[in-house]
Formats: sequence, C-alpha cells, structure tokens
Amino acid sequence: MAKSIPSRSEDYSLWYNELVKKADLAEHSDVRGCMVIKPYGYSIWEKMQQALDKMFKETGHVNAYFPLFVPKSFLAREASHVEGFAKECAIVTHYRLKNSPDGKGVVVDPESELEEELIVRPTSETIIWNSYKKWIQSYRDLPILINQWANVVRWEMRTRLFLRTAEFLWQEGHTAHATAEEAVNETLQMLDVYADFAENYMALPVIKGKKSEGEKFPGAVDTYCIEALMQDGKALQAGTSHFLGQNFAKAFDVQFATKEGKLDYVWGTSWGVSTRLMGALIMAHSDDDGLILPPKLAPLQVVIVPVFKNEEELNAIRSSLEPVIQDYRKQNVTVKLDDRDTQKPGFKFAEWELKGVPVRLTIGPRDLGQGTVEIARRDTKEKQVIKIEQAVVDTLVLLEDMQKNIYRRALEFRKQMTTQVDSFDQFKKVLDEKGGFIEAHWDGTTETEAIIKEETKATIRCIPLDAKEEQGVCVYSGKPSNKRVLFARAY
Amino acid sequence: MAKSIPSRSEDYSLWYNELVKKADLAEHSDVRGCMVIKPYGYSIWEKMQQALDKMFKETGHVNAYFPLFVPKSFLAREASHVEGFAKECAIVTHYRLKNSPDGKGVVVDPESELEEELIVRPTSETIIWNSYKKWIQSYRDLPILINQWANVVRWEMRTRLFLRTAEFLWQEGHTAHATAEEAVNETLQMLDVYADFAENYMALPVIKGKKSEGEKFPGAVDTYCIEALMQDGKALQAGTSHFLGQNFAKAFDVQFATKEGKLDYVWGTSWGVSTRLMGALIMAHSDDDGLILPPKLAPLQVVIVPVFKNEEELNAIRSSLEPVIQDYRKQNVTVKLDDRDTQKPGFKFAEWELKGVPVRLTIGPRDLGQGTVEIARRDTKEKQVIKIEQAVVDTLVLLEDMQKNIYRRALEFRKQMTTQVDSFDQFKKVLDEKGGFIEAHWDGTTETEAIIKEETKATIRCIPLDAKEEQGVCVYSGKPSNKRVLFARAY
Repeated sequence: MAKSIPSRSEDYSLWYNELVKKADLAEHSDVRGCMVIKPYGYSIWEKMQQALDKMFKETGHVNAYFPLFVPKSFLAREASHVEGFAKECAIVTHYRLKNSPDGKGVVVDPESELEEELIVRPTSETIIWNSYKKWIQSYRDLPILINQWANVVRWEMRTRLFLRTAEFLWQEGHTAHATAEEAVNETLQMLDVYADFAENYMALPVIKGKKSEGEKFPGAVDTYCIEALMQDGKALQAGTSHFLGQNFAKAFDVQFATKEGKLDYVWGTSWGVSTRLMGALIMAHSDDDGLILPPKLAPLQVVIVPVFKNEEELNAIRSSLEPVIQDYRKQNVTVKLDDRDTQKPGFKFAEWELKGVPVRLTIGPRDLGQGTVEIARRDTKEKQVIKIEQAVVDTLVLLEDMQKNIYRRALEFRKQMTTQVDSFDQFKKVLDEKGGFIEAHWDGTTETEAIIKEETKATIRCIPLDAKEEQGVCVYSGKPSNKRVLFARAY
Repeated sequence: MAKSIPSRSEDYSLWYNELVKKADLAEHSDVRGCMVIKPYGYSIWEKMQQALDKMFKETGHVNAYFPLFVPKSFLAREASHVEGFAKECAIVTHYRLKNSPDGKGVVVDPESELEEELIVRPTSETIIWNSYKKWIQSYRDLPILINQWANVVRWEMRTRLFLRTAEFLWQEGHTAHATAEEAVNETLQMLDVYADFAENYMALPVIKGKKSEGEKFPGAVDTYCIEALMQDGKALQAGTSHFLGQNFAKAFDVQFATKEGKLDYVWGTSWGVSTRLMGALIMAHSDDDGLILPPKLAPLQVVIVPVFKNEEELNAIRSSLEPVIQDYRKQNVTVKLDDRDTQKPGFKFAEWELKGVPVRLTIGPRDLGQGTVEIARRDTKEKQVIKIEQAVVDTLVLLEDMQKNIYRRALEFRKQMTTQVDSFDQFKKVLDEKGGFIEAHWDGTTETEAIIKEETKATIRCIPLDAKEEQGVCVYSGKPSNKRVLFARAY
C-alpha cells in the first residue's frame, strides 16, 4: 500500500488533514497561518479558475488588478466594513531593514516608519471604490464590470488547510451600476454563476439563499450565498455575492450624472469565491481511500498501470497502447502511463486512488494477448474487462457518468441529511445525533439567532431563495414566522 | 480627435506616461508606488501569461503557490540576498487595528505586535527553499520544476508605470537539481524560452547574455538575461534566469542522498519575467498616435467602424457584416463592431489607433453598394479597398505580416543603434549623441564597470552569449580584453 489515511468515521477532521497532505494538495508553511499549495492541488485550482474565468467573461466581465495594500484610512471610511476586518489584518508599518547593531542579522530600521500604515488587503472594496471615483462621472461610464484574481490576507487565529488560512487566493468581482435594480440583478446573476459552477463542475449541490443580518458581509446591504453540505453533516459556505447598495459609493463619494442630468450615488456589488472551494470539493466527495474528483476538474483523468515483469513486456504494452494514448489526447482527455519500475502495481493503484484519478486502465501480458484491458472507475470502484479498442469510447462515457453520479450521490446525501424540525428540543437532538441541514422557523430577530448560535453552535446558513411561504412559529421563541430558514453547524 | 498624446521626439518620457494612461493600460493608485492595471492593460498581460504558461508547461514545469510573507530571519539566511533586498521592502509588524482612543478612526493595536516581523515577498527564493528542505531527501525527489504566478513588493522610491512599481505581478520559476550541469542547462533553457517569447510573441528582438558580477541577482552564482532596446535608445532588461549554485541549498540546509549514496547540497535555479514586459512592449513598437501591438498579443485584433447617417444605414451594414464577423470568430480572430452612435468615425479611428488594434475595417453605404470595405493596418497605416468577401482572408495575411514587420522594424532599429566603439571619448560621444547599445572592450573588473557607470550612467547590460573572441583593450583602462560587452543606459 501507498500512504494511507485515517477513515472518515474514525476521525473526520484528521481524515481531511491527512488527505490534503498525502494527496499532495497543500501543506502548512512555516509562516503562521499561511499554506503552500502544492503542484497537484494548484492544478485543480487552475481548472477551477479557468472554468470560472470563462463564465465571468461570458457574462460581460473583464479582469483588472488593484493594489495589494489598503491605506488604513481607506478601510476606516465605511464603518461596518472596518469593524468587520480591523481585528484580523496584516499591517505594514515600515519599509526598510538594516543591520542589527549587535552584528547579528537584520532589524527593522525605525527611521523607515510609514506616515500611514498599510493594510494587506482582506478584500478590495475600499481600494477599488477609491479608483472608481476617478473613473465614473456620468451614466455613460456605467456599468463597470470588473473581476480580480488575487491573494488576500485575514489574520485568522485558528487555521485549516484551504478552509481557513491567513492568506488565501480568490477572485473578487466589483461592479458599479446606475440603478439599484441593475445592481441587484448583477448580484443574483453572479450567485447563479456560482451555483452553476458548483453543480456542473464541482458536482456539488448547493442551496442559494440570503444571509441573515447577523451573517452578512461588513458593508453590504444584502449578502447572498451558496451553501453546501459536507459528509460530516457540517455546512460550508461556498461563495457569496453582495448587493452593496450605495454604501461604498457614499464612503468614497462616487457620484454620477444620471440620464436625467441629476447627481446620484453609484450602486455596487461584490462577489467572490476562494481556494476554500478546494476544501469543499475534497470534503464533499472523497472516501477513505482518498480523493474523488469530478472528471471536469481532475488534472489527470486517466492513468494506465501496466503489469510487467521485464522491459520486454513493458515495451510490448507501450507499443500496443501508443495509439490509445494518442486517441485520448485527440479527445482532450488527460492521460498518463505510469511506467515506473520502482513501484508495484498495487502501490500505484493506491496512489492514484489517493489522488482521485477518475479512470484507471490496467493491462498485463495476458490482456495483451487477448486484446483486452481492465477499466476501473474511482467513484464506485467498479471494474470491467473491455476490448482495448473500446477504451477511449468507454472512458468518455464513464467520465460523463461519473460527473453525474458524484453529483447525484452528494444530492442524495444532502436530502437524507436535511431535516424539518418544529421544536427546539428536536432541533438540538437532530443537530447532535444526525447533523446536516435543519429547516426550521425563526422569528427573524438577530437576538434569537444569537441565542441559538450560543446554545447550539448552529448558525442560519441562509434564507433559501426558494423557501415556501408557510405559517409557523419560531423554534426558539415561539413567535410567528412565515418561512423556514436553513440552520447548520458550519465550517 | 480622441485623446491625443505628446510626440516621442517632443518628450519621450511624457509620451510613454500619457500613452499608458490614455490607452487605458494602467494608472497610479493612491497607494504609494502601486499601480492599478486597468482592464485593457490587464487583457494584454493575460495574453502574455497564457503564452508563457504554455511554454513553461511544455518544458515540464508545474505551477504552485507559496506564502506572500517571508519571515525576517529567512531573508537573512543568505548574506548577499538580504543585502540586496533589505533596503526596500514592506514590513508587517502588527496584526490588529483598534478604535482610536480619541474616537477618530482606527489605530494599530500595540498589543498585536508580531514576535517576528514578516516581509512581503520581494522574491521567493527563501520561502521556497525552506519548503524544498522538507520535500527533498533523495535524488529520486529531483528535479523539482516549479513556477509561481504572484505579486511581489520592492519598496522603490522612484516609480514608473509598469517599468518600476512598488508592487508588480510576475512569474518566478524555482527549480532544484541533482547536478550543477542540469541546473545550468535549466537556467539556459529558460533564457531561451524567454527569448523565444520576446521575439515570437512580443515581436521584440533581444540579446541573450550573462550579467557582470556587479549586476547579478543577489544570491546567484550567475545571472543570465535578455536585453532589449527601446525607441529612445535606452536598454531594458526583459527577463532574467539565475544559476543559484548551491547557495540557497546551503542557506536552508537542503541536502539529498545521491545515487552513489553520498550526501550533497541541491543545485538551484530561479527565473522571472514581470509586468515590466508591458513597458517594454509599449516602448519598443508604439508611435505618436498610440500603441502598436503585435497581433499575437492584441486583445482585440480587428475593429470595424461603420460610417452611417441613420439607423437604417447602420442596419444594412450590420446585416452585410454579420457573416464576416462569424467568419472571423471561426478563425479565432477577435473582432468588434464599433456601432456607437455617440462618436464620429474620425474619433473612433483615433481611439482604436491609440489602443493599437492591428486591423481596422471601415465600411459605409457606398462600400456596401460596391461590396467593398477599406482595410487599414496599424503598423504602417496603409489602407486598401478590398472586396468584403476577401476581408477575413486578407486580415489573416495582414496579421501575420504585421507580427513579422513589427519585429523586423525593431531589429532594424537595434542594428542602426548598436555601435562598436574603441575609445572612452567615442564611448561618451555615442552615448550622448546617439544612444543605443555600445559594443566595447572591458577589462572585466568591477572597479572599471563602476567608474564607467558613474561617469556615463551606462551599465554593462550583458556579456552576449554569442560575443566573438576578439583581442582588444578596455575602453576605459586600456587593459587587455578578449571580447566586447554590451553597454547602454538603461531603464
């Protein structure tokens, strides 16, 4: 066996950490809270980026790049924004090192103190709206539909690979509009883009909803989100889209001449997904043998493991597979022949299962004689012996089926793990014994939300956009409510 | 006329600054030394990234991501490295803001001081070799061929858009090898990749060479570079590739078990190009009317300007062009119909010339009647009337010819602007009156290099790899020399 990992039932949290490390996705660096995204992990992120970037461009957005540093005074312009980010940020105060007077190493040169401290961006609303002020005079300058791929820093005290790190990679869209309606439409359009990406690329079913007042983005009027369920029954917020109203336009005095010749503040949105999606992808699908990757995001889709005793046998396998490999490439299927002679087939099987390669072909001298090959799928572990010349066609069918099957499985799991409850006792019991999403009535107050969170560690994940009108009473306060909201313990 | 810019002969430096701003490529931000890369500029950078990334992958490299922050002690491990970067770096010292005691805004919370300061990476050798230490035990773990796309910060005091900014975007390759020979080969291979990219995508002729001791990268054994000539006769270093020897392996104690079972330090390379290339691209080719972009890097390759008096005429033009536009897209040519009714054709011509769109089609009602269209190329401004059905085929020929012509023109200019000199008087005269590259003998000492730099502001750009063996005497000291090196004043 190659590197093995603990089972999910044994210790889900340890299973996740070990999987991330042993599948060579990422590791902790020696810099507090910062991770190293290793090549295999990064290649999955690149596939996500490509798909998302294409979707952003198809919806009319363009990319740009804004400064890494936010002057302290910018952050302070929007009251709830600074309140939300001040407590955990990296602050640049000096710009020069000098030799230490004691001759050992270097020290910060006190004479290089900055007049105004710079914050390493935790998000870029302030720095971007400061630019928009210069770019927007009239309704003719609107809309502005910009996205940025960047790194951001939030000084988290407790970190977990991909899920919560001090530095992470993300994209942040920042748009400016002439009307509230247009900005709201943009907010919801991008929520749909995220849901589309999650479901069709990540094979991750998500619930679209609105955040409660207590959970919304600092500086937003409304925050929308997509929420997914992990295999341990905890929820994970996979993306957010914010309607900013005129908050940042007012904070940075961004006004425009309307068609009617009046002056008005600009309406804004912002929306983002991050390397956190890597955590969601891993936790939603994988099993005790390792990663299960949806074929659309798998950097390597097919691995071929030859079984051979000597160089001659390997060469025979190589030449019979050469046309198959060519065919795969013609079909844009990524394929690798694992012809290492330093490892046995069993080791290779375990290694590629750990890494989540969707399809494995195994071929030995006997197969060669019969013109067959064994094809195995990663999600169900089913194997089949097929004719070599069928390999590529069968693979294409398998990849498509796996993409769907992984989604279906996650959706089925979520259905089983979603419970309607009507009393607080039941609420707590379901949370503790079953976990998952809880659909419950809530009285709509921040106070009740806070008490429930304190007593149960469950939060309102969202008010689902498709929640049905239904008369009921709040599970906690007994006050009237007209729809159920979604509760869960969350990452 | 749309926005106009000063001419090159009038004020080259102002011409460049205004061109960058008016063509919407980039602008200064309100954060000292940091620029905003605007969507049009960023779309050119994206094209560069895509081409380079493909070339890196074709030569066996993979992408990864390492932390933004470098602990101060890491930077200090390699003596010449810290010496090179200590004087201009952004230093993070605290991680929390709090409300100001005077009730106005926020201040740095002194209780959040970091135990060890973090430097925003000016380059990532130290943080990466600290990871490589954990990844490399044996020769089987080698080579490691990693690239990273990232932002870096060097606290430059005098900044210019794209050419020298406190924060810039780049890629940095960091490789680890079992032998010196393999590392040197990698260094030179990547130099070739850069030269190939510069010449075949940027249409920018470059000279490959080695840096003198005085100009090499802090921490490198040898630095290789590609040097290009700008239209004002100043040189610009367009990319560097460093053979690091065992310097960083020793600084971070990265040893490996060789095939022979001995322990040895790992050999390293690093190589990078940055958004500085944007500056080179702009300055090498553009004219007094604006940008001239090589077709391979132009985000928009064809613009169609309809000449019309009313909606009816415009609609007639639109429907006759619809199949042409479809054809362009089939050929992967990016095309835009500029059907704004708020601007006159002359304004549009000037605007698209400013933005460097390679091909312009102009079509009015009379053309429509005759089935013709006017096609204009940006580099020579030549125009021709052709049959509409010829437009796509002619464009493809034009785009290819322009890519070559722009290169040829830059190469011709460089030839004219390269002068062999044999005395220091002539050296100074050529520098002041003509500029450009000077090929001169040099005695090989750092002292002479420094004096020449002080007296003339010219530096040794490189010792060209293809420099001929030739007996001569140093232009400054009269001491013997066996090859000419390349001098110039540089960006």
